[in-house]
Amino acid sequence: MKKILSVALLIVYTGIYAEAQRKIVHLPDLQGYVTLKCDFHLHTVFSDGRVWPTIRVAEAWRDGLDAISITDHIEYTPHEDYIPADLNAAWKIAQDPAIEGNLILVHGTEITRSMPPGHLNALFITDASALTQDSVFDVITEAVKQGAFIQWNHPGLKSQQPDGIPRMYSIHEKLIKNGMLHGIEFFNESEYYPLVMTFCLKFNLAVMCNSDNHGVISESYTEPEYTNRPMTLVFAKERNYNSLKEAMFAGRTLAYFGDILAGKEEYAKPFFYKCISVGKPYFQNDKNIYFEIINNSDIPFTLVNGPDGAPASITISANAVTRVVLSKKVSVPLVYDVSNIITGENKKLKVELKY
Amino acid sequence: MKKILSVALLIVYTGIYAEAQRKIVHLPDLQGYVTLKCDFHLHTVFSDGRVWPTIRVAEAWRDGLDAISITDHIEYTPHEDYIPADLNAAWKIAQDPAIEGNLILVHGTEITRSMPPGHLNALFITDASALTQDSVFDVITEAVKQGAFIQWNHPGLKSQQPDGIPRMYSIHEKLIKNGMLHGIEFFNESEYYPLVMTFCLKFNLAVMCNSDNHGVISESYTEPEYTNRPMTLVFAKERNYNSLKEAMFAGRTLAYFGDILAGKEEYAKPFFYKCISVGKPYFQNDKNIYFEIINNSDIPFTLVNGPDGAPASITISANAVTRVVLSKKVSVPLVYDVSNIITGENKKLKVELKY
Amino acid sequence: MKKILSVALLIVYTGIYAEAQRKIVHLPDLQGYVTLKCDFHLHTVFSDGRVWPTIRVAEAWRDGLDAISITDHIEYTPHEDYIPADLNAAWKIAQDPAIEGNLILVHGTEITRSMPPGHLNALFITDASALTQDSVFDVITEAVKQGAFIQWNHPGLKSQQPDGIPRMYSIHEKLIKNGMLHGIEFFNESEYYPLVMTFCLKFNLAVMCNSDNHGVISESYTEPEYTNRPMTLVFAKERNYNSLKEAMFAGRTLAYFGDILAGKEEYAKPFFYKCISVGKPYFQNDKNIYFEIINNSDIPFTLVNGPDGAPASITISANAVTRVVLSKKVSVPLVYDVSNIITGENKKLKVELKY
Amino acid sequence: MKKILSVALLIVYTGIYAEAQRKIVHLPDLQGYVTLKCDFHLHTVFSDGRVWPTIRVAEAWRDGLDAISITDHIEYTPHEDYIPADLNAAWKIAQDPAIEGNLILVHGTEITRSMPPGHLNALFITDASALTQDSVFDVITEAVKQGAFIQWNHPGLKSQQPDGIPRMYSIHEKLIKNGMLHGIEFFNESEYYPLVMTFCLKFNLAVMCNSDNHGVISESYTEPEYTNRPMTLVFAKERNYNSLKEAMFAGRTLAYFGDILAGKEEYAKPFFYKCISVGKPYFQNDKNIYFEIINNSDIPFTLVNGPDGAPASITISANAVTRVVLSKKVSVPLVYDVSNIITGENKKLKVELKY
Repeated sequence: MKKILSVALLIVYTGIYAEAQRKIVHLPDLQGYVTLKCDFHLHTVFSDGRVWPTIRVAEAWRDGLDAISITDHIEYTPHEDYIPADLNAAWKIAQDPAIEGNLILVHGTEITRSMPPGHLNALFITDASALTQDSVFDVITEAVKQGAFIQWNHPGLKSQQPDGIPRMYSIHEKLIKNGMLHGIEFFNESEYYPLVMTFCLKFNLAVMCNSDNHGVISESYTEPEYTNRPMTLVFAKERNYNSLKEAMFAGRTLAYFGDILAGKEEYAKPFFYKCISVGKPYFQNDKNIYFEIINNSDIPFTLVNGPDGAPASITISANAVTRVVLSKKVSVPLVYDVSNIITGENKKLKVELKY
Repeated sequence: MKKILSVALLIVYTGIYAEAQRKIVHLPDLQGYVTLKCDFHLHTVFSDGRVWPTIRVAEAWRDGLDAISITDHIEYTPHEDYIPADLNAAWKIAQDPAIEGNLILVHGTEITRSMPPGHLNALFITDASALTQDSVFDVITEAVKQGAFIQWNHPGLKSQQPDGIPRMYSIHEKLIKNGMLHGIEFFNESEYYPLVMTFCLKFNLAVMCNSDNHGVISESYTEPEYTNRPMTLVFAKERNYNSLKEAMFAGRTLAYFGDILAGKEEYAKPFFYKCISVGKPYFQNDKNIYFEIINNSDIPFTLVNGPDGAPASITISANAVTRVVLSKKVSVPLVYDVSNIITGENKKLKVELKY
Repeated sequence: MKKILSVALLIVYTGIYAEAQRKIVHLPDLQGYVTLKCDFHLHTVFSDGRVWPTIRVAEAWRDGLDAISITDHIEYTPHEDYIPADLNAAWKIAQDPAIEGNLILVHGTEITRSMPPGHLNALFITDASALTQDSVFDVITEAVKQGAFIQWNHPGLKSQQPDGIPRMYSIHEKLIKNGMLHGIEFFNESEYYPLVMTFCLKFNLAVMCNSDNHGVISESYTEPEYTNRPMTLVFAKERNYNSLKEAMFAGRTLAYFGDILAGKEEYAKPFFYKCISVGKPYFQNDKNIYFEIINNSDIPFTLVNGPDGAPASITISANAVTRVVLSKKVSVPLVYDVSNIITGENKKLKVELKY
Repeated sequence: MKKILSVALLIVYTGIYAEAQRKIVHLPDLQGYVTLKCDFHLHTVFSDGRVWPTIRVAEAWRDGLDAISITDHIEYTPHEDYIPADLNAAWKIAQDPAIEGNLILVHGTEITRSMPPGHLNALFITDASALTQDSVFDVITEAVKQGAFIQWNHPGLKSQQPDGIPRMYSIHEKLIKNGMLHGIEFFNESEYYPLVMTFCLKFNLAVMCNSDNHGVISESYTEPEYTNRPMTLVFAKERNYNSLKEAMFAGRTLAYFGDILAGKEEYAKPFFYKCISVGKPYFQNDKNIYFEIINNSDIPFTLVNGPDGAPASITISANAVTRVVLSKKVSVPLVYDVSNIITGENKKLKVELKY
């Protein structure tokens, strides 16, 4: 068949950003840091995903993300009858659209082994095709040599841990000891693993949160609690590739999925206080004091276990003003647990409302 | 029948604010002023409306307004077979809920006459029952004596002006000359009158925008362009009753309805520039420069009539980031008309994007 | 003040049905009966509601109801400083709009006493003003003389039964014995009482379901499970006032609220089988049989406790087609419990899928 | 690299239909025919689309379609650096999922040439790889030999006809004369060509309507008028492959896109009357007759140009009941034009309401 060259000119090129608008994710920065919204686990047709890489870029742009990594499986490529293996293909295809969309594209791949060690994402690599040795330890060594941040994926995934409980095997501890494991997914796709918080706190690893999407993001998070798609929040000194990488190795992250935040208290606590502001009382009568809490973030907070006489629970709706009517009989500080901010395997963030 | 007193205790009182959350209307303040969101034209069962006054307060609170006035008709009370006339009733009933909800309640009423002068709202009055003389001029005189801001309502309403075109009659000019007319509705309920802008500019009157709602607000503005209900934006020195009143007499207002802004250029122009921010170019190649426009307001802006070589039109979506790809061949300033900011009968605001 | 008569002409009358469209509630008829969708418990400004009676008619019309009753409290009229008592007012005002909207308007009122007997709606009365004696028994006797259907309202309401558990007192049993109590609310506003099913089955009373709305219906049922507002489904021989009344006295009803149905099995079972149809298998391979279930109703059904080897649960979405893949190993009938059809205090409807 | 075979077992397979429910498209059958909902123009990564073929099947199933054809370009394969040409690939991959989802999969391809003849879809083919000759006439001859239905795609596409106006060239007339052109797209993606109706009527061709989607359907038709995605309605004797094919060659189709129907009057007219039913008057007074129109279809109809004295226009909302108040002075038949049913280049369907 002779190729008809002029045909390309007949097709109207619709740029991937055409018409679209980019969402603003309403989440605050921390003092000294910019909050980067990231998804470090995504698939395309180049492994077992069902979309072309440019869709991942367009989705991320539309959803207000700052950075993504496309992490197709190295060892699992079910489409190879139709698509020959090219482990860097998605990255090559996504690069130009990412630059033109002001997105940080992190070169990554998913090392896909039985448990242990299970699945691991190598992020910030330079060449995925060098990561095809038999020995997983050799693969990780090569990735680290390329500068990779190694993330342990969905450690409690039922197909690898039938009871859903993550377990650290000796290979994980060895990796950590050698500085070859840097973060663990607390949340993956639609499930989270409380125990991961214990691992991250004990070994000072980054708490990660990713979609692991294989299909279409906009069809995957349609439940009302997903104001935004799941994301790892990274507190970086600046909005660029190197600052992002530095922040992740330093473990400055929070997991954000649905209406839940999870991570180390040192980041979760100031983050909460940057989301809300408590106003001075605007009215009082014999019995009550009236004040407002403004929440300028996309995250609603549910405060529980209030002190005696105060409201037992307060829902601080997202992007809204909440009105609090407080009995004048309450003289203790207004200390609450935030039921949707997880700071430990069985621990919620404790906060005080100062009105 | 003996009244069963204990029955009141059997009824669970649901406070009008119970469960509800107050919306944040995303609109910027102007330098030196706070932007108050107001609706100065509302009806209840005490004239021809279909709701109790507390519904007006609860709606305003939920919708993020700062101030409202309930303005039942003096001369038109079709429910009087069931409800005896009490021209201050709505105000009396609404007062406590307004205070407890941090809302500014403006005592008002609607003087309801044939054209001319048509319908007029008297706002910031102290006693509506004193406004029942036969002569409309006497009524307005009394209102002004009470300190009223007089607003001319829907001057092009078809039932009073069959061609829909507002006309100034001699009584209007007399009122203006005597300082007894202070604002005109540019927008009322669901229609607006371009000619009102000419009147307001000529006589330095406040440009007003109100819902004139008789039913239920949440059922009245369901079209997608109504991110917020219609409102008069008032640029006040502080958020309180006296500052609001001062600002209105000073004419510091904009009309905001659907996705349209209308008013004097001296307020519309800085308001636009406070809504958006144009970023520095984040990328350029041989042909194009790429930059972003952030719009943190609830109002999408449609820029049209761009200079040669630049995009002919740019839609700056609300609460979103817009990406602009600009040809390097464009050397002139990026001057556009904002098609949805009306500053004169046939005039749109002209702006420049400085990237 | 002289009334300005011509003013009425200046006001554009917006009929309560103007612009609106009437929803079709997708629920099947039963063999020999038409399914009437009804709400027999509604309030207006004439007792402690916050809307004018025409709003109740317009809401019912828009929501696809066939019949309503406005049932303002006799003994609780907190607005009487502004609105003199007129127990028939709402009915008088609603009558013409109901006729013009093809709605059946049932004259009703709420007898509002302490427990026992608590609150009772008298439906199909002719004059509420005759129901104001001190003795509640006298009041009910008068109502029954007028032809009333007596409904016991929210028997487990916490303000009357602090533990939320309905209790039959001797007065209730006396009323039943005398044929003076005909139905009980299984659902009221936002809560339901499983025990009511036991009462209704034991005494052969109608199972009722009403909104008891005091505010605005469209703002009251915004949760996604409320495809329709709560309603009593009445299986009447024809769509008219007399047939409706006959059906209610005969107890031919189901309660429908959110995505739950509740009532006697003799109505619930055929109703379920009229909602769905199970198709013949459209494909089979070595392992599985494939068939579809069409649900043409607004109610999603959740089937649980499936037989061994079959899907443990099946969600039959509303107005949708559900695909079932069944292992060929299953040889027993496909019997399930419908978890959202309540036929007894602790009983769910059992159904069989015949494909 | 040694392939790790067991890895496939570690990946949880989520069937493409898992969790999903299939929508019911509410459109009536015609007397003697079943209405098949079809999209005969879709792309995947195997030409210039951005999704894997299983996505096309899953979308069609979810959207309630009966039949689709994936029609990747023969001559335009911009992904071939990564995906070697296989013109039957999409069809092979989609076949099993289609069978398991009760969908009719039509083997097809897009012949992609400059104008004339422009782009043509060959539907119901058996082997796309045989359609790669240089001469477009040879290609079409081969397709027809395989049994193909030939559809002329988007004849007014601006990249091929800069003024957007379709033109018949001699090759089109030659194809028609030889029975080698059977249908033309009246609607494609987001635009339609009124002139196509003239061509179809003159040459008795099928009126076609397809999405021509390259990305994700659910993100492509988000405007409110798209209750359903665009589809060709085919009136087939039965719901199967052969009946579908017979109906298309017989030209029994309508185009349905947004809230518009287009096609030959012989199908459009009975289709309209099957969508709606006009009730008997339920009430009349001195001045007016009141009746209802039930529309059980997903298409709202806008009736215009009513007779004197009758409502000038009537909007018959989709899946709703419309109330008509008719003056008793109207004695002529209620004849209207349906402004959203196109039966000719400049012609709308004329209907009569018989109440």
